[in-house]
Amino acid sequence: MNIKEYVTKQLGRTNGKRYEAYVVHRIISKLDDLSIKFVTQQYVSLPDGKFALTDLYFPQLRIHVEVDEAHHRRNDNVRADEIRSRDIVVRANSNPLIRIDVETLSIDEINIEIDKIVKIVGEARNSEIDFKPWDITAEYNSETYRKKGYIDANEDVALRTSVEVCHCFGHKYKGWRRGGAPHPDENTILWFPRLYENSTWDNSISNDELTIFEKSKDTTRAEKMLSDFLAKDVAKRVVFARVKDNLGSVMYRFRGVYKFNPEESRESGALVWKRISTKTKTFPLPV
Amino acid sequence: MNIKEYVTKQLGRTNGKRYEAYVVHRIISKLDDLSIKFVTQQYVSLPDGKFALTDLYFPQLRIHVEVDEAHHRRNDNVRADEIRSRDIVVRANSNPLIRIDVETLSIDEINIEIDKIVKIVGEARNSEIDFKPWDITAEYNSETYRKKGYIDANEDVALRTSVEVCHCFGHKYKGWRRGGAPHPDENTILWFPRLYENSTWDNSISNDELTIFEKSKDTTRAEKMLSDFLAKDVAKRVVFARVKDNLGSVMYRFRGVYKFNPEESRESGALVWKRISTKTKTFPLPV
Repeated sequence: MNIKEYVTKQLGRTNGKRYEAYVVHRIISKLDDLSIKFVTQQYVSLPDGKFALTDLYFPQLRIHVEVDEAHHRRNDNVRADEIRSRDIVVRANSNPLIRIDVETLSIDEINIEIDKIVKIVGEARNSEIDFKPWDITAEYNSETYRKKGYIDANEDVALRTSVEVCHCFGHKYKGWRRGGAPHPDENTILWFPRLYENSTWDNSISNDELTIFEKSKDTTRAEKMLSDFLAKDVAKRVVFARVKDNLGSVMYRFRGVYKFNPEESRESGALVWKRISTKTKTFPLPV
Repeated sequence: MNIKEYVTKQLGRTNGKRYEAYVVHRIISKLDDLSIKFVTQQYVSLPDGKFALTDLYFPQLRIHVEVDEAHHRRNDNVRADEIRSRDIVVRANSNPLIRIDVETLSIDEINIEIDKIVKIVGEARNSEIDFKPWDITAEYNSETYRKKGYIDANEDVALRTSVEVCHCFGHKYKGWRRGGAPHPDENTILWFPRLYENSTWDNSISNDELTIFEKSKDTTRAEKMLSDFLAKDVAKRVVFARVKDNLGSVMYRFRGVYKFNPEESRESGALVWKRISTKTKTFPLPV
């Protein structure tokens, strides 16, 4: 997808919600800066354990904008099972959430609020010490991360295919269809899970993303996996969760490096993985 | 309808057409001037007799903007019978039509084109000697036209109800449901026709709006009307055509003053009305 498609598709998602369309389009038009990535209708998990949807999100700056309409307060109603397969961003209490009340404000007042938001976003961009301009081509290309030497979950990293993920870790595979792949480090694999209940797995991730639960729906297999991992005791996973972005395309969102936790696994009967890092080293391709 | 509703509803009509939405929203955001009225998806009749749809139209400045997408060239396909009840604006050859080719241009190039359009519209506004700032409340209020002393079809005049039209011509009616009303001048009436074929009338207006044909579908009545008018010979109509605007609301669009033409009427069997003026005097309310 090129930037023209991305921008117009993101903005085109406000269909049918005219105030939201007005505000979101106007912010992006007046911001007028294609080095700042934006996402419309971003699912977020909140510190209180709930889920919400923000109308406009700037991932590099972690700023959220919400358009408040009386008939349009969807945030109270987002159910976890509706969004389990979606790309979800953790919204910390420190991440700004700017609300704009389109219901009671006049158009002149709405326009003033929009100008304020544009100013806030512009200033955030300028005060970010190591702001990295958005590059839609580079962001989905494994070469970017090989050159950089690492992948950081705090930098909004997702790749479009699992084979592209493999290319960040020294594999030259032309295709890759399995749920995991080897990793250069000992006792470590690359993992591409669906972190929600699906036909064969009863997986989940905690709202704060610190803990992953993994359990096969096949009881015999689940028991065998658990005893195998308990015997090994040490295992790590570099996790790229398979999610769908807000335009419906699959992507593999880097969640961090997770370590097997024997105590909690024994207790829960599932494999329990605890995040030990949000950053992981990348590896060059073999010559 | 207040200006907030108008603006967001007009912009909200680009639903599902993401390039059109992008361009139209961005022009309006960057123009950032609520004294300039705009209409989205305006039906126009062209000098060659065809009909078209322009994506963005500025009535005060008579500037049309068209977003060219390969799958979106609707202009070749607008059929007269689909739009007969709609508000149609005559587009003269002299009225600027600015096309923006979203298909082949990059987003940066599209943004440059949009900036050019914004500049053209802004300059047109500034060079219009007697530019009248858009006032959504005044434009549908008969008082505006009583104070002004006239109504000019070249000034984009439509009222929301036929009783509001009556109030421009010295009538204090509280309601009015007939297809015509008295006019202070001799041999003249106010007329609120549907200028397209409907259940009881076979009416039409020429593409250049210079000629109106009126004929009852009841043959006996049609013949009697024709002979009555031919006997009178002199008759005038101040015409406010009943149309639907692009948001689906009824309005009465002033078309001009028309005079009965006996020769063409005799020839065609319908009442033929010829425009003699695009301007008409208004009258104060009785004290």
